[in-house]
Parts: sequence; C-alpha cells; structure tokens
Amino acid sequence: MHLGVCYYPEHWPRERWETDARMMAEAGLSRVRIGEFAWSRIEPEPGEFDWQWLDDAVEVLHDAGLDIIMGTPTATPPKWLVDQMPDMVALDAHGRPRGFGSRRHYCFSHAGYGQEAARITRAMAQRYGQNPAIVCWQTDNEYGCHDTVQSFSDAAREAFRLWLKQRYSAIKALNTAWGNVFWSMEYRSFAEVELPNLTVTEANPAHWLAFRRFSSDQVVAFNRAQVDILREHSPGRDITHNAMGFYTGYDHHDLAGDIDILGWDSYPLGFLEQFRFSPQDKLNYARQGHPDIAAFHHDLYRGCARDERWSVLEQQPGPVNWARHNPAPLPGMVALWTLEAAAHGAELVSYFRWRQAPFAQEQMHAGLLRPDGVPAPALAEAKDVAFKLKTLGSKGETCRDVALVFDYPAEWMTQIQPQGEGLSALWAVFDCYGALRRLGLNVDIVPQRADLSQYSLVVVPCLPIVSEAFAQRLTEFDGEIIVGPRSGSRDQDFCIPDNLAPGPLTELLDLTVTRSESLPLGLEHAGDGWAIARWLDHVEGKAAPELTAQDGLVACWRHGKARYLATWPQGEVLDEVIARACRDAGIATVPMPKGLRIRRTSNYWFVFNYSASEITLPETIEGEVVIGLRTMPPAGVTVLAR
Amino acid sequence: MHLGVCYYPEHWPRERWETDARMMAEAGLSRVRIGEFAWSRIEPEPGEFDWQWLDDAVEVLHDAGLDIIMGTPTATPPKWLVDQMPDMVALDAHGRPRGFGSRRHYCFSHAGYGQEAARITRAMAQRYGQNPAIVCWQTDNEYGCHDTVQSFSDAAREAFRLWLKQRYSAIKALNTAWGNVFWSMEYRSFAEVELPNLTVTEANPAHWLAFRRFSSDQVVAFNRAQVDILREHSPGRDITHNAMGFYTGYDHHDLAGDIDILGWDSYPLGFLEQFRFSPQDKLNYARQGHPDIAAFHHDLYRGCARDERWSVLEQQPGPVNWARHNPAPLPGMVALWTLEAAAHGAELVSYFRWRQAPFAQEQMHAGLLRPDGVPAPALAEAKDVAFKLKTLGSKGETCRDVALVFDYPAEWMTQIQPQGEGLSALWAVFDCYGALRRLGLNVDIVPQRADLSQYSLVVVPCLPIVSEAFAQRLTEFDGEIIVGPRSGSRDQDFCIPDNLAPGPLTELLDLTVTRSESLPLGLEHAGDGWAIARWLDHVEGKAAPELTAQDGLVACWRHGKARYLATWPQGEVLDEVIARACRDAGIATVPMPKGLRIRRTSNYWFVFNYSASEITLPETIEGEVVIGLRTMPPAGVTVLAR
Amino acid sequence: MHLGVCYYPEHWPRERWETDARMMAEAGLSRVRIGEFAWSRIEPEPGEFDWQWLDDAVEVLHDAGLDIIMGTPTATPPKWLVDQMPDMVALDAHGRPRGFGSRRHYCFSHAGYGQEAARITRAMAQRYGQNPAIVCWQTDNEYGCHDTVQSFSDAAREAFRLWLKQRYSAIKALNTAWGNVFWSMEYRSFAEVELPNLTVTEANPAHWLAFRRFSSDQVVAFNRAQVDILREHSPGRDITHNAMGFYTGYDHHDLAGDIDILGWDSYPLGFLEQFRFSPQDKLNYARQGHPDIAAFHHDLYRGCARDERWSVLEQQPGPVNWARHNPAPLPGMVALWTLEAAAHGAELVSYFRWRQAPFAQEQMHAGLLRPDGVPAPALAEAKDVAFKLKTLGSKGETCRDVALVFDYPAEWMTQIQPQGEGLSALWAVFDCYGALRRLGLNVDIVPQRADLSQYSLVVVPCLPIVSEAFAQRLTEFDGEIIVGPRSGSRDQDFCIPDNLAPGPLTELLDLTVTRSESLPLGLEHAGDGWAIARWLDHVEGKAAPELTAQDGLVACWRHGKARYLATWPQGEVLDEVIARACRDAGIATVPMPKGLRIRRTSNYWFVFNYSASEITLPETIEGEVVIGLRTMPPAGVTVLAR
Repeated sequence: MHLGVCYYPEHWPRERWETDARMMAEAGLSRVRIGEFAWSRIEPEPGEFDWQWLDDAVEVLHDAGLDIIMGTPTATPPKWLVDQMPDMVALDAHGRPRGFGSRRHYCFSHAGYGQEAARITRAMAQRYGQNPAIVCWQTDNEYGCHDTVQSFSDAAREAFRLWLKQRYSAIKALNTAWGNVFWSMEYRSFAEVELPNLTVTEANPAHWLAFRRFSSDQVVAFNRAQVDILREHSPGRDITHNAMGFYTGYDHHDLAGDIDILGWDSYPLGFLEQFRFSPQDKLNYARQGHPDIAAFHHDLYRGCARDERWSVLEQQPGPVNWARHNPAPLPGMVALWTLEAAAHGAELVSYFRWRQAPFAQEQMHAGLLRPDGVPAPALAEAKDVAFKLKTLGSKGETCRDVALVFDYPAEWMTQIQPQGEGLSALWAVFDCYGALRRLGLNVDIVPQRADLSQYSLVVVPCLPIVSEAFAQRLTEFDGEIIVGPRSGSRDQDFCIPDNLAPGPLTELLDLTVTRSESLPLGLEHAGDGWAIARWLDHVEGKAAPELTAQDGLVACWRHGKARYLATWPQGEVLDEVIARACRDAGIATVPMPKGLRIRRTSNYWFVFNYSASEITLPETIEGEVVIGLRTMPPAGVTVLAR
Repeated sequence: MHLGVCYYPEHWPRERWETDARMMAEAGLSRVRIGEFAWSRIEPEPGEFDWQWLDDAVEVLHDAGLDIIMGTPTATPPKWLVDQMPDMVALDAHGRPRGFGSRRHYCFSHAGYGQEAARITRAMAQRYGQNPAIVCWQTDNEYGCHDTVQSFSDAAREAFRLWLKQRYSAIKALNTAWGNVFWSMEYRSFAEVELPNLTVTEANPAHWLAFRRFSSDQVVAFNRAQVDILREHSPGRDITHNAMGFYTGYDHHDLAGDIDILGWDSYPLGFLEQFRFSPQDKLNYARQGHPDIAAFHHDLYRGCARDERWSVLEQQPGPVNWARHNPAPLPGMVALWTLEAAAHGAELVSYFRWRQAPFAQEQMHAGLLRPDGVPAPALAEAKDVAFKLKTLGSKGETCRDVALVFDYPAEWMTQIQPQGEGLSALWAVFDCYGALRRLGLNVDIVPQRADLSQYSLVVVPCLPIVSEAFAQRLTEFDGEIIVGPRSGSRDQDFCIPDNLAPGPLTELLDLTVTRSESLPLGLEHAGDGWAIARWLDHVEGKAAPELTAQDGLVACWRHGKARYLATWPQGEVLDEVIARACRDAGIATVPMPKGLRIRRTSNYWFVFNYSASEITLPETIEGEVVIGLRTMPPAGVTVLAR
Repeated sequence: MHLGVCYYPEHWPRERWETDARMMAEAGLSRVRIGEFAWSRIEPEPGEFDWQWLDDAVEVLHDAGLDIIMGTPTATPPKWLVDQMPDMVALDAHGRPRGFGSRRHYCFSHAGYGQEAARITRAMAQRYGQNPAIVCWQTDNEYGCHDTVQSFSDAAREAFRLWLKQRYSAIKALNTAWGNVFWSMEYRSFAEVELPNLTVTEANPAHWLAFRRFSSDQVVAFNRAQVDILREHSPGRDITHNAMGFYTGYDHHDLAGDIDILGWDSYPLGFLEQFRFSPQDKLNYARQGHPDIAAFHHDLYRGCARDERWSVLEQQPGPVNWARHNPAPLPGMVALWTLEAAAHGAELVSYFRWRQAPFAQEQMHAGLLRPDGVPAPALAEAKDVAFKLKTLGSKGETCRDVALVFDYPAEWMTQIQPQGEGLSALWAVFDCYGALRRLGLNVDIVPQRADLSQYSLVVVPCLPIVSEAFAQRLTEFDGEIIVGPRSGSRDQDFCIPDNLAPGPLTELLDLTVTRSESLPLGLEHAGDGWAIARWLDHVEGKAAPELTAQDGLVACWRHGKARYLATWPQGEVLDEVIARACRDAGIATVPMPKGLRIRRTSNYWFVFNYSASEITLPETIEGEVVIGLRTMPPAGVTVLAR
C-alpha cells in the first residue's frame, strides 16, 4: 500500500516547495495529490492559462520521488465563469441559488457548465496527460459534498423531462407506473412534469425516486465526460474519485463502473460527531471514532469499485474543522486508521492535508505539518506506518465470510418513505455490519449483482427493490440467508408488488407480508433476551416462526436456509438472528471485547484497539505477533501471522 | 348509524368493481364516498369530459345497494389547469409558491380558480344531481389540510384589502382599531395594507387576527359557492365536508352553517403521535390513541354542525402513513372507535379507505382490504360493528351535562399571542374536556351563541373575545360556571378592553385582572394537592379567593355561581375546580379507571376500554349488559341498558 | 442619578397628558423619553408635518418639571415612505425582503433611506433643537434589534464593494489577505465580490469578518449622520442611543465614540429566559433574573461609553411580552435593579414604559401604569427608589479591581468560527465576569485600548485578534494577567499568525499553541477539583504548567505575572485560576453567598439579594447600614457606609 498526501503548492511560497517535497519523501510518502481546487490559478483570466507554476510544482514533487495524482479543478469554478453564466449554479429545494463563495457551486444539469468542465479537463489532460510524473487522475472533488447532487434549477427541470422521456417513452406509461391517478397528478406530456420540490405536501414517492435516479445519473454522466477526455489524452493512468462517509446522494456503484479506483475520504472523528451515533458512543469514541466507521466504508467502497480497487484519498490526521466538536485523535489513532485501511486492502492512504492552512474555510483542519511548517503529531505516525508496512510485506488474500447486500436505491427509498422516523436502509446495513464484525467476521458489502459463491452467509438488511436475477441467485445460493424488513416491498417505480412484499423473494422465504407497522421508541415486544422494536412485519405463509415474543408476535421466520427478520435489524434481536445463521452456516466466530476489531487476511490477523483502555487479546486469536503486543494499549495495533 | 367507505374506482381495474361493491355490501356498509380526487379523469383535457367511467362506477355501486357520497374534485386541480393560470397556487409565508405535485395547490382568493372550481362543480352537479344513487355531496376535501388556508399571494393581498374595506369602511377606523400608531404603522388607504408575513419582527396581532378571519372567510366563501351550485342542481341531497383533527385554520362554526352535515376524519393513532401528548401517553396509547381524541372531536363537531348532524367521513382502519411512527391498532380498536362515534350520535362512520393503494403518496395507509384485494383485519371489525349496531337499535337521546365553550377566534388569539410557550385555547378546552370526561360526564363543546339552558355546568376554559350577548347569557344562566384565564381579555380587534379583563364578564365574576404572567415549566406555586403553573392572573375585586396557594397567591376566585380560574386549566388544580363545581351543581360524577371512558344516552351506557389491560367496570355503572362483558378486555366495548 | 420614563403621548387622549405628567413628577421622575416611534404622526403625509401635537406634549411635560429626551423616529419609517422606495428594506440572508408591518424595516446601506432619515432628523432638530425642555436626543432606537444590522440587499452589496476597496485598495491585496486561493475564490476586481450569504457551504471566514465589520460600520455611519445634524441644530444637548442585552451585531465601542452617553435597555427576566442560562438558573432566578445580567451590561456599556457616561434607557417594570415565558418580578426587584444601576454609576434609569398599551405588539408589556391608567406595582417601587437615592446622596468614586478585556470582533470571530458548538467570546467574558463578581470584586469591561494602570488584575478571556499596542501594554502591565484560549490566534483578516497563537502575546506568555481541540460535552480531563472541558490548547514553550490534569494534560500555564488558561474559561478551573491570580495580585476577595452580589464605591457597599430566600450579610462586609438590613429579604437591597 502506498502512503500519500494532499498538497496545495499554490498555497505556499515557491521557495518552500522543495523542502515540502523532501519532507514528504523522507516520511515514506510516495504519492501526492494536487490541483483539484486550482482553477483560478490555472486560468486566472478566461482563456488565459498559467501553466508555469503547476509545471514547476509537478517537477519539484516528481524530482523528490513522488508520483502525482492530479485533480481536475471542476469543483471550484472561478468567479469570472459564474459571472459569465449566472444560471450555472444549482437552486436548492427552496428555490434559492447556491452561489459563489465556497465550492461546488454548479448544477450538474447545466450544459454550459458541462462544456466548461470538459474544456478545463481537456486543457489539463493535454498538458499533463503524458507527463511521467502523473500516475493517476482524480475527477472533480467529492461529488455531492454539501448536498450538491440535487438541483432544482430550470436546467435540471429540462434535463429531468428528457431523462423521463428516455425512461418511459410515453407519458401514459409514466402516469401508470407512478400511479399519478392518485391525486389527479396525471400529466399529458413530459413537458408538464415538474421537479418534486415545493409541493404542498409530499410529492409522489415515485416522483422523488425518479428524481433521485436522475440526479445520480447526472453526476455519473458529468464524471464520465471527464473520464472520456482523460482516457483519450492520458492513456495508461488510473482514474479515481473521492467518495465520502455515510453519503448516498448518487449511486456509487454506477460511478465506480467508469473509473479505475474508488477513493474515499476518511474522517472518523468528524463522522462520529455528525452522524447518528448514541451519546454514549460519541463520548466513548470521541478520540478514536466508532470502531466500525472506517472499516464499514472500506468494505462498502471496495464492493462498489471495479475489480475491488480502492483507496483512502483523504485521511484525517488530527482535529478537523467541520464537526460540532473537533477533538484530537488519541496518539496512535492516525497510524491505526492507516493500518486498518491496509488490512482491508487499500492501494493508498493519502493524508489530508500536508500542511494546515492558516487562512480560509479549513484553517482549523489539521495537517501533517502545522501552519508554521513544523511537523504535527501525525507526521511521525505516518512515518511509523510506512516502516510497519514494509515489515509486513504482502498481506495475502482477503478472506470472505459474509456478503452484506446494499444498493443506493434502497437508501433512497427509505429516505423518501421512512414510514417510521429515522428508519434507514443504510443504517440497517451499518448495524448489521457492526453485529457481524463484533463476531470477528470479514464482511463484504456488495450490490445485488455480486457473485455470492465465495460466502457462507448472505445478509440482506433492507432492500426494497429486488431484481429477479438477485432473487434467483439467492434461491440458488448454498449458504445461509438473512433477509430484513421492507426487502422486496417495492417495484422499480416505488409501487407495492402485486403479490405484496417480499415480492421477488416470496418463493425464497415462503411468506407474504400482509401488514407493516413502525413502532415508536419504547414500544417493544419482549422476547427471550431480545425485543421487537421500531418495525414489525405481519406475515402469513408456510415459513415457520423462529423467534416469538412473549405476546406471540413473531420477530423472525424461517424457511429452509433463509430467515426473514420481521423487525428492524438492530440490537439483541439482530445479534440473535446472526448468531443462529452463523451457527447454521458453520462459520467460526470470534466475539470481540468491546472496542476491539479484527481483520483477517490469508497471511495475518490485524487487530485494532479502538477503546480508550488496554485490552488483552482473546486466546481465540492465535499466531505469532509480528507487530504490537498481545496486551494492546489504547489505539494499539497488533498483527499476528496466521 | 350508517357504515360506509371511501372508494376510488379510478384506481382499480374495471373488472374488479362489482367484486368490491359486493364485498362492501356484504360487510354491512351502506354508503360509499367517491370522486373527490378524480378531476384528471373526469376532465382529462380542458373542456373535454369523460363521464363514462364515473357513470359506470355509480351504477355498479348503487346496484349493489350502496348509496353514494359524491365529492367535488376541487382539492386536486389537474396540471393543465395550473399551467393555464400559474398564479392560482398559494404562496407560503416565506413567499414561495406551493406548486403542483400533491394536492390542495390553490389559493382560496384566486378568482380564476374560483371560477374553475365552480365550473367543475356545476358540471358534476348537472351530471349527477338528480341521480337516485347520490344521497350526499362532499365539497372539496379537508379544507386547510397541509396548512393551506393562508396564502400570501397577490390575489390574497388584493382580496384582504377589499375585505378590510368592507369591515372597517374608513382606513382611520382600521388604524384606530388596531392601534397602528404604535410603531408608525398607520395606513393612509386600504391600498397601503400589506399581508402580515415577512415583517421584520412580529406584525400587529390585530393585523394577524384580521388576516386569520379573512382567510377563514375565504374558505367559507369558496365552499358556499359550491354549496349554492349543488343546492340548485341537486335538491334534496345532503351536503357535507370533512374537517380534521386538532385543526383550527378556519372557523368551522361558520362553514358548518352552510352545509347539512359536518364530517370529520378520525385518525386516533396518527393524532396521538403528531400532537402534544406526553411521551408517556404516546407509549401507553400507541395502539389505541388517547382516549379523549375521538370523542373530543365528535363533541366538538357536533357542536359546530347545524342541527347537530355530523359524521365520521374517514375512519382509520389500520396503520397510516403520515405520522412519525405508524403502529397498528390493537385488535378491536377499529370497532371500538366506530361504536364510540355511534354513541356520540354520528350519522355515518366511513372507513378510509376500501383498499390500500399500492402506489403514490398513501401506499402505506391501510384500508379494509390489503393492496392485493384480500381483506385486512379491519374488515371483520366493520362487519362486527354492523351486527352490533343492529342489535342495539335506537340509542335514544343524548344526555347533556356540561357545556364547554369554544370558538375559533379564541385559538387564533392564543396562537398569535401565546404569551407563554404552548399556551393554547384549543388545548385548554381539550384538557377541560378530558377532566370532565374522566368524571364520566357527557360534554357538549359549543359556541358562544349556544343555548345553555339544558346544562348544569358551563365551562369557559379560555375565551379571549367574549360577546356581550354571551356575557348576558352567562349572567342569566342558572347552573355553575367556570371561567378560565384570558377570557374576556380582548375586544374584536385584539385590544385589551378599557375595563381590562375579563371585560364583558366583569360583572359576572366581580373581579378585574390587573396583571397576567406566564410561568416557565417548573415554576409552580403549590396549594393543597394542586399547584399554580403556566399562567397566573392577579386579580382585584369583590370575588372571594377559593383556592389559595401556600404562599398566598390565589388560583381560583368565586363570586356567586361563577368561578374564575386564575391559572392555566390543567392538572390537579383543574380537577379540583371541576370537582367543586360539579358538587355545587349537583352533578353525579362517575370517576373513570385509567383508560376507561363512558358515554350515556337515554337508553344506554356505552363503555370503552382504551387501556391495554383488562378493566372491570366500576359498580357505579349499573344496568343490563347488552354487548360485551363487565370485565372488559383491552379495546373492549360494553353496552349496558339504562 | 435621574429617574425617567418612556412615554408615548400619541397613544393617549390629549386630555390625559397633564395627569400623566403630574403623576410622573410626583413619583420622583425627572426625565421623559418621547418621540422615537412617531414618524407617521409627525409627518402624516410626505412633506406635510404636524408639529402641533408634539409641541403640545413637550410643553405639558416640561411644565410639569420633566426634562425631555427626544428620539429621532427613524426606526419606524411610515408606509408611504416604503412605498416610495420599496428597495429601502433589508433582505435577510435567504434573500427575502424584511418588509413593512413592524419596525426597523430599513437597510443601513440604502442611500435613499439615509437621506430620508437625515431629512426627518433635521426637521426635528430644527424644531426642537433649541427648546429648553430638550436635554438629550436619542438617535433611532435599538440599532440591530430583530437582527437588523446585516442586510443582503443590492444596496448592501454595492456599499460592501466600496468599503472593501477603501480597506484593501487593490483586489490582489484582498485575495492575499483572505487566502482566496484556497478554493479558487479569487476575485479579479472589487466588482466581482459577493455578499457571503447563499454560498453552498460556509463562506471564507475572512469574508464574513469583513462583512461583519462593514455592517457595523454602516450602523456607525448611519448614526453619525444623525449626530452631525443634531450637533449642528441642537448644541449643548447630550446625544444618546439605547443598546441591548447580549447583543453584538455592531461595534459598540465605535458607535459610542460618536455620542455622549451610551444607554442600554435592561430586561433581566426576558434575558434570563431567552439566553443561554442553565435550566436550573432559569428556575432559580425566574422572577429576579440571573444576578449578573444587569451588572454585566452596566459594566460593559460603561466601558464602551466615552468618559464612562451611561444610563439605562429602558428598565423592565413588570412582565414583558417577548420571552418564551413572561413571569412577574418579585416584589422589590424593580427597585433593586434601579439601585444596582445607581451603584454602577448610571446617570439615569428610565422605565419602559409609562403606561401599558392596550393595543398592538407590546400590549402584554407592563408599564408603571396599567392599561386603564391605574398605577401598576412598579410605580411604588420607583417612588421608593427616588426617596432612597436622595437619602444616599453622592455615591462617591468607582473602585477599580479588575479589567476584563472584550471587543466586538472577538465575538464575531467566535460566531463565525466557533470550532466547538456554542463557544463564544462574549459568554466567556460573561462567565469570567460572574466568577470575579462572586468574589465580591468590582469589574470593568474594557477594550484593548483601555488604560490598565488602575487595575491589579487584567483578564483576557478570549480575544482572537490582539493589537501590537495591547500586547505591549500587557507586557508593561504591573499586575497579574490571565489570558484565555484563542487569544492572539488570528490576524486582522482572520488568518492564523505566522508564529501561531497567541501571536502578539507570544512573548508575554512565552508559549506557542501548537494544536487546539474542542471537546464534546462530557469529555473532560479531571484535575484536582476542576476539569479541562470544552476546549484544549496544546502548548510548547518555556511557560511552566500550573494546573495539570490527572492524565498529564495541562489546563493552565504560567510565565511570570501572566497565566495562559489553555481550556475554556468556565466552571471550577476558571475559579481556581482566578483565585490564584487574585492571591498573587494581593486582591482581597469577599466570596458571595449564592444569589448575593455586591458593588463597592468609595462611600458605600451596595448589596443585592437576587435569591428567593433571606440571606444574612457575611461578616466580611462591614459598615453602618444606611439602607435595608443585614438580614436581607428576597429582592432586598442593603447599603452600608464605608
């Protein structure tokens, strides 16, 4: 695995560049990402390019032995461009322009901006496409960041109408598919279709789902336009893009199909603070991040990526600036996060950023250097990791235990229609991931089209729209299966299937969901050490009750190798169902002490102590210690040979 | 009482209609409501009507023995109409259009839309006005749903200015009445008056009150236009409209004056979840609804209706889709809710809806049938109710114990100027209703103009604007009287009366409110088992203190037959004052076990178990059991002959 | 000290005026503030003035022995003026107009309105400038109330560009100063600069800070235009303006430099309820206000004022109308608040308002009279105060113990970039103020430019932008110094200094802040009776650790006479650091019982009982009781001769 760093030569005096490059190389870094916010320096006046400084920077860095990941600067179009075409900005759902002054101020559907993005991409690709320093291109930066996938502009409306016409051909087909008769919402032509915002009460969920698909497709198309240019002018280089944490605004499976390596930006402390972790977890893991945050995304994006090629394009190196509270990581955590990425198979971990900027929006975002150019604590940890990675050599093959099935429309569906507050397909997947990982298992998060043959257990936490092909593959699957609530409950156009849920999975599970209810917090039906909570599907069919609450309500049904979890996948009931499935599948589990996590490759056990206390490895984890100690300090990493 | 159902033949294949009609009749239903969202099917192109399918549906349903309530489809104007006159949509208080894509996308003040609404109403009335299948018309659907009464459009502004001119004649009169001198808010002409939104800080409360009255009048006028057309073309049929729960956006007393039957839409579980019930009540009654929700609205809308004719036009039959959480009712609850409506004197309970729709916004809203056309649990309960209603025969006359006085301007006043967070006239009435009903009393919720002669006790929980006529009627009233805080504290234009509160009630109560304060939660002045909380009126006059707190502050004053409750009507202090008034009025009370509720007619006691536990009837409730058992299961209904 | 009252003759019948004037004088009032909302009465039609009524009112009041503070009515421009220039209103950050219908509906940058404001000011100044009844002018009313300093209008944008051009001369200088290269935010000309609202994510903090400075400067310029006119036409009169509580929208040091007396509006109960006090304090002090609210502002605005001339222009006399809950003060509190203002050196306390208005927005705001013209409880308290003030005679000189350093850009900085939720420079100052005052100390809140020579201790709670001159003055300062976190962490353009924090204070403290982190609530590092919480600066340098937590993290560093508090100034750690500094400075402290507060002048001890219980004075407070008792009742005031 390579180590790298994100660097902005344009932020620093020319005379510092050689020093920076030398320090990077000395720290064991071999990759440097540059350029992705530099449009105003590359093209300071319309059509007038200034390549000199960037040529210079590329040369200095490469001369120090660093390979370059070059970013296209399309996330930050300069002011003169926005002034040329003021309608290039997105409109938010309230109809307000999302203007210049920060970043991502463009609408994916604006044709004029699309041409400008292609123009600047082509200019860069022509300039650097053959440069031996450049080993990889990054398109744009964090598509969707700051909620920018959806735009409610005129351009978006026109594009949406075209998209719908391509999808449905005839307006009557759309009316039927969406059930527009419901509230006299029928259209007479595609030109009558509006965007789903600013309706009096919620728009048709089919309307929203179509708009979510369309908006995602616009991102994919925008990206593909850059990819095509880069492929033409820079053959042989990888193309990557940096995804984000807990973010589902576009379909990453689709986007990843067009690029070589899917990167993501890993900020465990910020994510802990900003996302839906319990107050207790937020305290327990304030300086470490919840132990499943990073690994979850490693396994998610590996599953999204073509050929499982993935990387961490930005790695948190210290306190950040954007969460409600921004503590420092425990000493050692930066190294732990990096080694965990290695254990999950990353090609690269690139720290963000080299040196903390003293100005502008991210001035409180730590770097490997302090704003005054002196090393910050993370630099030594990066060096340490570089040394350890060399020690380890090849990590061997990934071991595969469990396939966890997720796709983006699943999360869109639950966002559009949660039915019970906060019930989300993504977080159902996260909770299943955590439950499996607390048993010491390796988990792959895969789409419906994945090959399941290498797994002993398939878990489908909440997958409303199920393809016939996937249903077929599950039926033919040899191992154990767990299917969670709402799975198979919708067709492609957000309608309930004629045979009701689980739709295409009916045969597999041999049951029909006749009624679904969501339960307020605290309304629980207790079983033996577990409870039905949040959700309950009432079921009829030949499946047998497997977990029955004291009042007779059934939490889990069984038919052959398949289980249907009729309540929300969380807590003890989830643990119980997974434990049973693992036992039936013959999977050996290694229950983890609180805060400990493990990753198994064909050569090693990697063990990570996310807790703030010392933990001694359970005896079930055997092998020669290659790195670390069996009694692990907080933020400790131990690697054992298998 | 009739049972009925809401049906959308346009949602289902033609070949299913006879089956549906037959199943309805077999279930004991005799009424079916149709048509209210079908504009795009009735008039698919501007001016081109397609009556054939609706003729057909009417015939099929009537042939099966069902009488029809036909809705005018004006709540869902089709897209082509909105495109013809884009300014027909309302603007919200932020100035944003409330566009097409769901329902109720029209501004009540838009003259063009008013003409279109009249045109479609006339077309339907001409088509079906004389049809023997049609026994009732419903105008529009749920006026005000999704906060649609107020619009801040140009049309609304023009209409508001006209309305003000009619009310005040001269602009100086308006300036004086509102006290516009206060912040140089004086107008020189009606053409200078703006709507009260988008002001820098709150607008003049008199301005808001006028706008609330105006907005309500626009609804009433819109409705009356339809009523006039229906009366002309469909003589002899009833006209109804469906009101909502805990909704005060327009003056229901006014609207009800124009129609024959006031309906309302009863969703006890959704209302429990969405409105201001305590977390504990939300859990205790998650599958039943708070025991006073349905009855409160029965008694409220009965009091609004001309000749006390009212019905439940939509009855929740299972989980709904629109609350934060949507649990299923306890088995038996649908029957309980239906029988309780009967006990309170409904003419009709109509379930919403016949069959759960597999598409569009309400696909998670249960029906009597599942989406696949198979009976859902509520169908059997409806059948059971039909049988029981036959068993009971005539329920006899309503018994009248207590008049609870409420009007819509009271709630508007407390919304405009709560003075203490959450202090609401409507909820004061609800709390008084609950306190009375927990004593087993029958309560009528009546306007100021009601005849009080049949009651032993009149409770006026919070009635800021009191008419001289009502004050006079109270003075002449023979029974006990309780008047709550803020009553009589404002004139028609939201000014404090010259003689201060209680204004016109000063003579009755023989006191003057010299100072009012609202108290933060937790700031209480304890008395003997009760406390002053939330509000305290300081008083001078000849009235005598009746309840004095330990620190000398007075919670309740007494003068003759009248009591003035100087603190907010809630909790133990309310119970204490009501208990004293009942004793003085000689009213026999029957304290209810928690979760039990009772309704008395001249022939029967109806008893309802809203708790989740078994309850044995108190011995004070005597009589022969006609339905049910003295030991009542959860969701049980027991009827005893008197 | 004078007592006064705010009066609106235009609200009341002409025949009442003499009565009101007489009652005022009899109550011991000698000042009356009028006119500030009367534009629509002074100029009912454009250009047509009606002076008669105001001449009359001035005469009646003066004849009764009252001196007049005359307000310019520019906070409430009449409707006809807004209709003449509709773009004179401000736009909010969402781009919505903030229209007519309440008050403060103008944009400070609108040149046309500026001219109109000057015109009406000149007209009033010409009419009354030489009138012997007029002793003082108030400009406008509560600049910034209802968040009105910032406007996002076209006028504001144009003015902002001009302001930037004046500040930076060249656009490149601005780009460099702000670090606009960061996200390609570079401008090519000042005409390209936008306002910082409606950006996709947060704008550059330097952009916001410039906009905050600009917006403040617009207020100061608007005010100065009136001041210049008043000085010209009304020589020899004082000019004042009324500031507000916990309000930092403009730079009060700047504004105060142009006027003679800085007034403020004191509403202790409303402020307690609306601002960030703990739920327990909100209950404990519901009828008194937190004991530091009033004094904090007295000392803050005294420090802002030229020559320390200040007053209370509006004093709460009973329940108000604008907080979430609005209880009545304890009997005696109005007198206590007034005497406390006297103890802190006010020239005037003016009650708001004379008589409660029965109409419009503030009808629930108490006055000295009830709406019916009968005395409300506060009138007697005012009389009592008038008597006591006479008894006391001269209060002597202010005693100076501690200088607490605050400026407005400090609070702007923490609002723009809190880095940890809720971390605010203003509230850091308030907490330090409370900690010092609970030790019985006199505290002056002063700007960086203040003369420090009279103090024994200087506390700098959180002052990000430190001038070289102030750093120099601290270095030369003879007493003890406490510097809090983030101090010296930014330059004038919101950049981190080259030498990192504490920037200009590096020499004084002999340390460098290498890393800052904010801590979530509950994440604490315990020391000996204190804890590091909310914030932690990691430090290197020669300063010595003074307070070290059990895990080795350092809360406080010491270098010579200076301490650096590396954690947020609050709670026990603050108390500990202050206690040490006082001891080292040789300051005698008098720890206060809970709820008691004290103020020392050269002649007296003033003691105030803010608690709801009786408190006996500690023996450390010696002297002859002049007013009150040593055993103080709730709301009691005791004055002892020194």
